[in-house]
Amino acid sequence: MLDDRTFAIKGDICWSKSRTEFASVHDGYLVCLDGISKGVFAELPERYAGIKVIDQSGRLVIPGMTDIHIHAPQYAFRGLGMNLELLDWLNTHTFPEESKYRDAAYADKAYEIFSDDLLHSPTTRAVVFGTMHVGATEALMDKLERSGLKTYVGKVSMDRNSPDYLCEGSAEEALADVERWLDDCEAKHYVNTRPILTPRFTPTCSDALMAGLGRIREERGVPLQSHLSENLSEIDWVHELCPWSSCYGQTYERFGHLSGDGACVMAHCNYSTDEEVSILREHGVFVAHCPQSNAQLSSGIAPVRRYLDLGMNVGLGTDVAGGATLSMFRAAADAVAVSKLRWRVVDQSLAPLSTEEAFWLATVGGGSFFGRVGSFDEGYELDALVLDDSHIRTPLDLGVDDRVARYVYLAEEGGRIVEKYVAGKRAL
Amino acid sequence: MLDDRTFAIKGDICWSKSRTEFASVHDGYLVCLDGISKGVFAELPERYAGIKVIDQSGRLVIPGMTDIHIHAPQYAFRGLGMNLELLDWLNTHTFPEESKYRDAAYADKAYEIFSDDLLHSPTTRAVVFGTMHVGATEALMDKLERSGLKTYVGKVSMDRNSPDYLCEGSAEEALADVERWLDDCEAKHYVNTRPILTPRFTPTCSDALMAGLGRIREERGVPLQSHLSENLSEIDWVHELCPWSSCYGQTYERFGHLSGDGACVMAHCNYSTDEEVSILREHGVFVAHCPQSNAQLSSGIAPVRRYLDLGMNVGLGTDVAGGATLSMFRAAADAVAVSKLRWRVVDQSLAPLSTEEAFWLATVGGGSFFGRVGSFDEGYELDALVLDDSHIRTPLDLGVDDRVARYVYLAEEGGRIVEKYVAGKRAL
Repeated sequence: MLDDRTFAIKGDICWSKSRTEFASVHDGYLVCLDGISKGVFAELPERYAGIKVIDQSGRLVIPGMTDIHIHAPQYAFRGLGMNLELLDWLNTHTFPEESKYRDAAYADKAYEIFSDDLLHSPTTRAVVFGTMHVGATEALMDKLERSGLKTYVGKVSMDRNSPDYLCEGSAEEALADVERWLDDCEAKHYVNTRPILTPRFTPTCSDALMAGLGRIREERGVPLQSHLSENLSEIDWVHELCPWSSCYGQTYERFGHLSGDGACVMAHCNYSTDEEVSILREHGVFVAHCPQSNAQLSSGIAPVRRYLDLGMNVGLGTDVAGGATLSMFRAAADAVAVSKLRWRVVDQSLAPLSTEEAFWLATVGGGSFFGRVGSFDEGYELDALVLDDSHIRTPLDLGVDDRVARYVYLAEEGGRIVEKYVAGKRAL
Repeated sequence: MLDDRTFAIKGDICWSKSRTEFASVHDGYLVCLDGISKGVFAELPERYAGIKVIDQSGRLVIPGMTDIHIHAPQYAFRGLGMNLELLDWLNTHTFPEESKYRDAAYADKAYEIFSDDLLHSPTTRAVVFGTMHVGATEALMDKLERSGLKTYVGKVSMDRNSPDYLCEGSAEEALADVERWLDDCEAKHYVNTRPILTPRFTPTCSDALMAGLGRIREERGVPLQSHLSENLSEIDWVHELCPWSSCYGQTYERFGHLSGDGACVMAHCNYSTDEEVSILREHGVFVAHCPQSNAQLSSGIAPVRRYLDLGMNVGLGTDVAGGATLSMFRAAADAVAVSKLRWRVVDQSLAPLSTEEAFWLATVGGGSFFGRVGSFDEGYELDALVLDDSHIRTPLDLGVDDRVARYVYLAEEGGRIVEKYVAGKRAL
């Protein structure tokens, strides 16, 4: 099957040369050997003569995008209930919807839509929240496995401060479910889909549950995802619940959740204190910046520039259904927009993000959670999107860089994904 | 031809009952007599028996949307040059592009794309900036006239502080061009398209030009559009240029530009002082709120809630190419998003906008600049969009209101405009 993932794509190729700059080759060749990029060339090098060439001349070819924070069960009500803040929104819309996933038939129907729409989105990899239900989470993983997308998927853990209809009976029960789920995942021998521990957030997880997850994390080497410093009321609540903590981040660190150097994603980090930031840096935690959700839930604007300047790991999340849209192009455009508003109305010491930086965040930034992913530089796993931008009409004669920059803002207004490759395999 | 504009549309109909509430009828009838709405009914009333019924069962039917601030010549570079603030952006991207419209062939090509894309957008009416060129502006008006959309279009006036290649030689020359253009418009007997005086903004218009436009406005009763208090550097510049003024708004009011009770659109008003606000109120000026542009050009966030509370006239603008996208659904979604961020990070005395309010702004709010437009209440000119939302998939069984609320956020991610009516005439 080697041939399957060995080919060259001919087209107008663009990727991130650095965090702040595009690299591009007009009418060039992107070479993939056994799923790994060998780089981009103006002419097909002699040594690859005879390789299968996929002719996408005139189309854009860019790296696939990685969504490092998205809630699969919330996809059903995306775009609804947009008039509330986080904690009220959870109680009014999110928890009732997530409770439906105890019903296998409902989960099947809902996750079929989610998986199929995700496959047709710009996302090639994703870090996904399920619900607390083992059955539904495994159904989601089965579907995502079949989609060809690479994902981490989490069965949510939550054993306190949640409505009766969506709360695990005890820490022991919750942990037993996690162990059972991880055993099932091993037995299923997934190729594309891997489990990730998922304490919902500190308010809904007892110390015993947090400690147990930390133990499992160490024993099994499974990564972990959660939420951190999203909303001011949430932060106040954490301080009440954990009076021993000097910052919210500590409530995860104490239980070993952040360890593993880059094996953890924390969503939001809108209000991280200096202490929290140094904890995140120390452990190489990936910050999932979710600009649309942070606007729609009136949460605030994360100081992404600061995290980038500190050399931290940062990627983008759509955070469906806090964010309504699945599009990582939209996440990139929104990241730029809110960074500009933050600069204008909050803090002029942090320069806005450029389009190039947002593109980097959506590709390399988040992709790095999966290893060498998000670039066409030699040695990266080859995730690629082939884009038709011919319906974004203009009388101007644009270069490849400008066409890609423009596509970030106009993906949903005339752009079309023609083909999609994940680790060198055609997914779409 | 009366029959042409007399019909009923059957479908899932939704419009604004008030500024804060939807009205909707599932599987109802929207009745149009001679281009005017007779209201929405659960069953077709006896008195309309025999009327042509357009069956759009299962589809959403909502009022058309009015974009009260958009620059047609900037459409060519939408999504590009997003890394600059207003004044640098004008000099680097906008002025060079607008200068191309002296070339009739270029204008024809560019405006053909603009007009066709606008026709396929959610917009049924628009208030449009052209360039300073009479020929190109008339070409644009000819195309918009043919599109069936209702528009006001402005030949831009600018005679100072502009690059040589895009600056009128003198106020006299500039005013003579305006008179010639208005005469041409009269001679052309447009039905859908009307001229609107368009001083670019105070910095690029001499006192003589401003005074002349005020005179023409009074003599001919033509409405007027311009920009106001968009960006902090712009406002400082206006204060330098007009040391006699106590607020930016006064630099228009002094020359009679705001008079006529609701015959004027001022775009942005992000930083209007109390004095400026009372001037705008006094004259019933329409504030064009342009959330995407105000984010992308790092301008700020307008206090829309305040304007609404004061009962002022407010609508939404895409402000292409300060805003990248033509979609008024996106403008509505962005208005909600930035109002929440403003509430969170600037001023908690101004409550965020709801989805329903943003929908009202996009329909009734801006539509009112054209008269009784933007509602399905009896007596309104009937502008309508028929929407297919079947590709916005969900396992939930949603009511009409929720489907419309969701569509605001997801229009570009699965929504499709099936038909479009302007004053009772099918445009699409």
